[in-house]
Amino acid sequence: MPRCLNLTRAGEYAIAALSRLALEADGAAGAPVPVEELAALQGLPRDFLAKILGRCARAGLVRTKKGKDGGVSLARRPEDIPLLDVIQACEGSYRRDACVFYASRPCDGPECVVYCPLRREEEGLRSALGRRTLAEMSRALGVHPDARGAARKGEAPWKAC
Amino acid sequence: MPRCLNLTRAGEYAIAALSRLALEADGAAGAPVPVEELAALQGLPRDFLAKILGRCARAGLVRTKKGKDGGVSLARRPEDIPLLDVIQACEGSYRRDACVFYASRPCDGPECVVYCPLRREEEGLRSALGRRTLAEMSRALGVHPDARGAARKGEAPWKAC
Repeated sequence: MPRCLNLTRAGEYAIAALSRLALEADGAAGAPVPVEELAALQGLPRDFLAKILGRCARAGLVRTKKGKDGGVSLARRPEDIPLLDVIQACEGSYRRDACVFYASRPCDGPECVVYCPLRREEEGLRSALGRRTLAEMSRALGVHPDARGAARKGEAPWKAC
Repeated sequence: MPRCLNLTRAGEYAIAALSRLALEADGAAGAPVPVEELAALQGLPRDFLAKILGRCARAGLVRTKKGKDGGVSLARRPEDIPLLDVIQACEGSYRRDACVFYASRPCDGPECVVYCPLRREEEGLRSALGRRTLAEMSRALGVHPDARGAARKGEAPWKAC
């Protein structure tokens, strides 16, 4: 399935899952959400999600708590987590490192005498993803038709933490 | 090697090769450049380049001519070839088709009540790549240190068409 930006599923699932954590926490530091519950809320495969969340934990984006009341929660406020950080935690550096014209040559970026149009647009996207935050994504998720039908509080079939 | 935009090598090689054709043609309809020569000029693998050029030909971006004086040339003026067309010719549709939040749901794009920030940035990039053309890329290539050292006219070791 082609994707604009060509994000892998890891990057997309991370954004969906962390947006959900932000929505559940309602802007504050939320109680941990069990991975099973998070997976069910967003329709994500549980084991793959756990792996992705491990990458996010290593990048300092989420905290995980083991045990009966354990789960995962955001390590920072949603407005302090840029989408770029989430993407890079899961997909590695999201920066051009080879020249567009000569693949064997490194890209010198803005220092390059060429600084070609493609590189400029990539940098524009990178900057934009560095400004956009999980807080914005959680607000978008909050008005999503599917999210509203699967609100955690009240009707969830699983035990809330 | 991670790449911003995560373009595959096919998309990048196509942009490099077609930028070179634009540079060689110097804004006009140029004589065909043999694929071997184009590959050597940009340091690209010949067979893979031929495959990529086949995709570009099917997309109406280049013309190929067989025979002794054959080769490949741009089918339109460089200023009439958006980078997005080159990328899509080689990589397929560069448009989001699944919801960021729920992968099993299609993305409704600007019609969606959510129209999330990630989708907006993707669309911004897509629009920008639709405006940027091969003419801009060929001007950038024209001042590239490596390109200047490998100018086709005069010092090329291969027979010009």
